[in-house]
Amino acid sequence: MVIPSLIQHKRDGHALKPEEWTRLVQDYTDGRLPDYQMSALLMAVLFRGLSPEELAALTEAMLHSGDRLRFDMLNRPVADKHSTGGIGDKVSLLLAPIVASCGVAVPMMSGRGLGHTGGTLDKLESIPGFRTNLTLREAEAQVERIGCAMLGQTPEIAPADKRLYALRDVTGTVESIPLISASIMSKKLAEGLNGLVLDVKTGSGAFIPDTSKAIELAETMIGLGTAHGCPTVALLTAMDRPLGRSCGNALEVEEAIQGLRGEGPEDLMAVTIALGQEMLLLVGAARDAVEAKRKLEESVASGRALETFGRIIEAQGGDPRVIESPDLLPQAGEVEVFRAPRDGVVTRVEPRRIGQAIIELGGGRRTIEDTIDPAVGFVIPVKPGDRVKQGEPLASVFARDRNGIEGAMQALSEAMTIGAGGTLAPLITHRVTAQGIQDL
Amino acid sequence: MVIPSLIQHKRDGHALKPEEWTRLVQDYTDGRLPDYQMSALLMAVLFRGLSPEELAALTEAMLHSGDRLRFDMLNRPVADKHSTGGIGDKVSLLLAPIVASCGVAVPMMSGRGLGHTGGTLDKLESIPGFRTNLTLREAEAQVERIGCAMLGQTPEIAPADKRLYALRDVTGTVESIPLISASIMSKKLAEGLNGLVLDVKTGSGAFIPDTSKAIELAETMIGLGTAHGCPTVALLTAMDRPLGRSCGNALEVEEAIQGLRGEGPEDLMAVTIALGQEMLLLVGAARDAVEAKRKLEESVASGRALETFGRIIEAQGGDPRVIESPDLLPQAGEVEVFRAPRDGVVTRVEPRRIGQAIIELGGGRRTIEDTIDPAVGFVIPVKPGDRVKQGEPLASVFARDRNGIEGAMQALSEAMTIGAGGTLAPLITHRVTAQGIQDL
Repeated sequence: MVIPSLIQHKRDGHALKPEEWTRLVQDYTDGRLPDYQMSALLMAVLFRGLSPEELAALTEAMLHSGDRLRFDMLNRPVADKHSTGGIGDKVSLLLAPIVASCGVAVPMMSGRGLGHTGGTLDKLESIPGFRTNLTLREAEAQVERIGCAMLGQTPEIAPADKRLYALRDVTGTVESIPLISASIMSKKLAEGLNGLVLDVKTGSGAFIPDTSKAIELAETMIGLGTAHGCPTVALLTAMDRPLGRSCGNALEVEEAIQGLRGEGPEDLMAVTIALGQEMLLLVGAARDAVEAKRKLEESVASGRALETFGRIIEAQGGDPRVIESPDLLPQAGEVEVFRAPRDGVVTRVEPRRIGQAIIELGGGRRTIEDTIDPAVGFVIPVKPGDRVKQGEPLASVFARDRNGIEGAMQALSEAMTIGAGGTLAPLITHRVTAQGIQDL
Repeated sequence: MVIPSLIQHKRDGHALKPEEWTRLVQDYTDGRLPDYQMSALLMAVLFRGLSPEELAALTEAMLHSGDRLRFDMLNRPVADKHSTGGIGDKVSLLLAPIVASCGVAVPMMSGRGLGHTGGTLDKLESIPGFRTNLTLREAEAQVERIGCAMLGQTPEIAPADKRLYALRDVTGTVESIPLISASIMSKKLAEGLNGLVLDVKTGSGAFIPDTSKAIELAETMIGLGTAHGCPTVALLTAMDRPLGRSCGNALEVEEAIQGLRGEGPEDLMAVTIALGQEMLLLVGAARDAVEAKRKLEESVASGRALETFGRIIEAQGGDPRVIESPDLLPQAGEVEVFRAPRDGVVTRVEPRRIGQAIIELGGGRRTIEDTIDPAVGFVIPVKPGDRVKQGEPLASVFARDRNGIEGAMQALSEAMTIGAGGTLAPLITHRVTAQGIQDL
């Protein structure tokens, strides 16, 4: 295998053979293929794309570069959700225990916040004692026992993806739909799933704001899941405003607990239930969408979902008393209310600016090494389209100190605009399956 | 300067600022910019190209990464030629002493053979004792004394190009007209020239066979030379057949000596004189093309050009007696004649196959570390369009042993075809200047 010839071939718009991709990933993981050749190849892929066969081979090779979860002895189907990331997106914290309470195992492997969006691991770790670095064998045992585990990507999972992602990050080769898809799916398929639902965010706060690009990403990942024998469905959901009311790690855990109690904000519950329906349907745990919805709502109403969340917290070393006493979660030193500067209609709550403000407050990361302050953030009960009066509270700011409050108040005045009129865009816009796209 | 952002910017089709290119080259040369970022950037350049401002900045930064020849005290103009490379292309061996004998200093920095084409340094080194690794100060002193030096790229010349070229070679980023142009011109402009002529080969044996691409390359290099204050002109010459009769290092030196005696083959002399005319005109050493031609022919006819070549050989440690006694050059162990397999007209003498056959005979390189056998090669007196009779000698093969002869005879039977009819394509097809393109 002559590497420069393969790079040239891809560069000139030809497809590499599946076995060539397998070998490239193996050689790269083993350190035989240097970074400088891989980065040139990745840039060529960014320009030329990958055929479905190439993409499947690349993803399989990344998946097989490491170990995976195994649930061969489990008497339940296994499903998971992946979100492309947003502001206030605490859906995983509700969805995993709700779906697990419906008899579907959920081995949820999540990431940390980076860039303007938060990460499920950071949110969970705001619960005192909560440990996300489970080994694969620990996660398997916990899923068998409780029906759910919530862990980080272990070093054994897709090590090729780990190296490739780090390289892409510093070589301008992140924004490629096939490379993004291979990265996500190589990790998700390592969970040994029977079904996967994707929450693909669109709008100004999403990594891929554009709807047609988001659909392309959804279709690409669905193709990979289906080819691997893991039925996959995607919902496109709005990220032109934060999801729910709370933004910030501990604040989002608190809101998730409210949601598991049946007291969550409408948009958060709607996205959670819609994704949960897909998971139950994918693995045959409900006959139809109506039954799926009933089961999910019943698992909340009965208290089983909240109980499951408590068992997960306890199993992973966290303090389950946070469920009854949210004040056991880290508390911010300073709180202040942001008020409407004038009468009018909320025209915009810009999620990207809110996400940046959380980083500025110390609640997000600039680099992967940063430690975060779990207590800081925002609670924003209003949505675009809401009519407000001057002086009315629009949001609460949670900061470490006065300095943080001032910056965050400034950020809110930039992120939230009051105008003559505005409406709330639809929350769930498209459903994408292997069969096609439905407008919702 | 955030490197991933610069790579993304170029990737997305935007121009980087001149000072950003300067810094990128400096940081790369100093080892602060890693290979994996540079190779991704080079691949982005391959797809997106470079604006004239970017290309000028890149070339100047590469030029200034090292030292250069200085002829400030010289009382003669300084000119040189660069060829994009071909089979049987020994023009430099004739042109340098001929032009130097016309009162124009020629500090000729050349390369080694790699791929299917030969290199001037390898040809010169077939002269016993000839040393091409002159230092810059040695070369300057010799040019002052004799009017000409023929040397290799020293480590002080454009070290950034050396590293970049090695990286491009293994990352599929060679075939970019701006990158090729920057590489060539950063070295040529380090010669401190008042004028430069480019011999851009076209046809099946050229690195860039396509005429329109060759013109684009010529125009790009002319733009760089002109912007740098070094008037530059290009001739496009045919490389759909070997140039002259001899192909192989020592054989080409022998033919060059014949040419300097006025006994060279017509095509070789025509290309040499045409390029020499451009050199004299560029630096004002002739009033017009007619006078330039007369001066060049006179320097051959008078014996001055041959005498200059002898002085160059002597100054660089070689044995000048080869001029009178070509049998002092390395001699092949086996010689055999290749005969016409049937009556007809020569339709093709495929230069690329001949070049490959020289490598197979041991007279060229597969990798830069290979040592070469200077004695092997071909003498092919016939050209496409020549009518031949069955059994008539078409070529002589010079090999180390019988094994070599057999392979080379096979190569000739593939490279040379006899058909019903054929013609010789024009030798010099286009003249490209800063003002435009002339069909010749």
